[in-house]
Amino acid sequence: MNKVSSVSDQIRDWMDSTGRNARAAAQVIAHAPTGVKNRALQAMAQRIEKDRERILEANAADLEAANTTGLSSALLDRLELTPERVSAMAQGLNQIAALADPVGEISAMNTRPSGITVGRMRVPLGVIGIIYESRPNVTADAAGLCLKSGNAAILRGGSEALNSNSAISGCLAQGLADAGLPEGVIQVLKTTDRSAVSAMLDSPEYLDVIVPRGGRGLIEKVSAESRVPVIRHLDGNCHVFVDEGANLDKAVEIAFNAKCRRYGVCGAMETLLLASPVAPAVLERLVPRYREAGVALRGCERTCALVADCTSATEADWQTEYLAPILAIRIVDGLDEAIAHIGRYGSGHTDAIVTNDLSRSQRFVREVDSSSVMVNASTQFADGFEYGLGAEIGISTDKLHVRGPVGLEGLTIEKYIVYGDGTIRP
Amino acid sequence: MNKVSSVSDQIRDWMDSTGRNARAAAQVIAHAPTGVKNRALQAMAQRIEKDRERILEANAADLEAANTTGLSSALLDRLELTPERVSAMAQGLNQIAALADPVGEISAMNTRPSGITVGRMRVPLGVIGIIYESRPNVTADAAGLCLKSGNAAILRGGSEALNSNSAISGCLAQGLADAGLPEGVIQVLKTTDRSAVSAMLDSPEYLDVIVPRGGRGLIEKVSAESRVPVIRHLDGNCHVFVDEGANLDKAVEIAFNAKCRRYGVCGAMETLLLASPVAPAVLERLVPRYREAGVALRGCERTCALVADCTSATEADWQTEYLAPILAIRIVDGLDEAIAHIGRYGSGHTDAIVTNDLSRSQRFVREVDSSSVMVNASTQFADGFEYGLGAEIGISTDKLHVRGPVGLEGLTIEKYIVYGDGTIRP
Repeated sequence: MNKVSSVSDQIRDWMDSTGRNARAAAQVIAHAPTGVKNRALQAMAQRIEKDRERILEANAADLEAANTTGLSSALLDRLELTPERVSAMAQGLNQIAALADPVGEISAMNTRPSGITVGRMRVPLGVIGIIYESRPNVTADAAGLCLKSGNAAILRGGSEALNSNSAISGCLAQGLADAGLPEGVIQVLKTTDRSAVSAMLDSPEYLDVIVPRGGRGLIEKVSAESRVPVIRHLDGNCHVFVDEGANLDKAVEIAFNAKCRRYGVCGAMETLLLASPVAPAVLERLVPRYREAGVALRGCERTCALVADCTSATEADWQTEYLAPILAIRIVDGLDEAIAHIGRYGSGHTDAIVTNDLSRSQRFVREVDSSSVMVNASTQFADGFEYGLGAEIGISTDKLHVRGPVGLEGLTIEKYIVYGDGTIRP
Repeated sequence: MNKVSSVSDQIRDWMDSTGRNARAAAQVIAHAPTGVKNRALQAMAQRIEKDRERILEANAADLEAANTTGLSSALLDRLELTPERVSAMAQGLNQIAALADPVGEISAMNTRPSGITVGRMRVPLGVIGIIYESRPNVTADAAGLCLKSGNAAILRGGSEALNSNSAISGCLAQGLADAGLPEGVIQVLKTTDRSAVSAMLDSPEYLDVIVPRGGRGLIEKVSAESRVPVIRHLDGNCHVFVDEGANLDKAVEIAFNAKCRRYGVCGAMETLLLASPVAPAVLERLVPRYREAGVALRGCERTCALVADCTSATEADWQTEYLAPILAIRIVDGLDEAIAHIGRYGSGHTDAIVTNDLSRSQRFVREVDSSSVMVNASTQFADGFEYGLGAEIGISTDKLHVRGPVGLEGLTIEKYIVYGDGTIRP
């Protein structure tokens, strides 16, 4: 049994009242008509546009405080809101309003020999806890996704973004009120008390699932302590394997894009695997492009023999999600070795093969156990928008409930519905 | 962090070697052709039929030991195998062989504006741990379902069924060998050391999910201690609500069948809710039938005023899953009160409405948050076979991953597959 002993009475009281509000609101939002939910989302978007200056001022206060406490420049960038970023938040809410409502969708209805008709109906999960860091836009994005999928949400952002999140949550609350929905549908925690997170993790009676969004430390703490089920998104140690006989142009474009389009995203390639027959030709064309882009190369012995200025890769390199202009390269003898490497070092996030061989493409797709497996496409496509989900609350690297980008459907589940006509079981 | 301190080095070693075997076997079974899996299932069935006498002898030894330790008659009944029950086990494996293979099923492929084609492929979960009590048939059923869905399984049956499970697992191992599959695909624990369960719960590196099958005590222990995700099936505190204007014949047949077809199943009705206008007529016809069947009635004040020999129901009655010829009856003012009662006291398993009102039937289906919601059908239909799943490993009362009867599909998950043609993300 997990014990969370560090929670003060005050935080426990807060959790009780927040949890009860959320449970009551979940009853309402689960059955709210699609039109009402959309009206709330659009009203939130309008409030955010209208309050843009106030949100930017609150964000400026957060940035100032963060500067004095010496937050890293990467974190500062995540924390910073610009007029464009605020507008993007509002636009995101309007986009969620435009998505089809997953709640109430009925599928697979069929009549059984007994006379009952059995099918499934998509329903919300209930109350979703979101624990996140830095980016204030998560407040609006996550709240919008939870609301549209018929769930109540309890959001706990980073203390460094407290003023920004407060300003945004004010807009969300007004949007709910505009649509006549209870304020308990979206509750944004306004304390920096760290034990609030522990209280959430210890409250399966109030929360049906927790989605942590942030660094590895946060996600591991949540996984280890939580008595509430967790949808995790851990590392993206992503691979591209260039198969023998692959089209060289495609291989070079994909390998370059997968690494260099953006370094800091979880779908970025971290290790390039090359089938030995194509390795020299691929490296000859790719290495100058990586050099130009400033990507540091760390290769296996065979790679280093072909590439000047290539550092020897260590065991740690195969395990590392660089999220930086660094690339590990390994030459392998073929598909089996590539699949084995990915199985051993990959994080089950996103892995791609570049090939023109149908049978090997099928094997790769079947045998690589990752949330996204790609053929002749860049791993940087791993994204809810790109997949047509409209938006995502994270990318699950778990193996239960949902794998890959988590959109509205991932925040719901199907129950069975059964119709008879006075039908009894013999 | 959960700490399981009571695990001996010996059990830890056992878990390590069992876990490694399972992980290696999972790689094989995940991609085994459907024909090979079916061959194994059929071979297991043949071995069980052939070894029937040996299995019955082993079971006789278990029964003898159980008699001396004073197991309850209900548990003895669950433990006992008969020639028919052994044949049913073999038949169950053949039925699983006849089911469609869920693994590799591709759905929802569509092409995105970027040029990538995105869809989903159904894949196994990996390694499944089953922790169960008494019934030796679970050994064959659960193993068969895990195998067909491409998963490796680690089974830990009750110590009271050790000889029976041993004999059955011998047949399963032979069936695997007959089909050329590794023995690690199905490993049945042959120790009565209770800390083996703790070792399983503490091994997320070896197990992807644990399915406990048994009494509330077992399931609560597993839920509380497990670091591995759990698919729980808790109580079935099931309700039938007879709506105003319901057809009386249908109402009486359903209410009688839901209670009396079998008392000990999780889909049995435990509380009958009657809309006040129909209560007198329903009770007039139902009560004599319940009396004849020997069902003890516990009613609310209004019910007791209408029914002689009716005990006053207490708060505990609304909460209790009797699994016995006892029924709680409450007269309510209408649909709202019925839904509220179910929301407060129900266990989210199976609840039914008997009605002829379309709009109220729709509200009941939408608003009752149970894994199965029924209209004009007996709650005793809550069953994987009845729903067309072919077989079930349990009935999930969880809200993540799978709700209701868990068949082959519930032991799998979808990953994303993405096809391009040298496609890069702008």
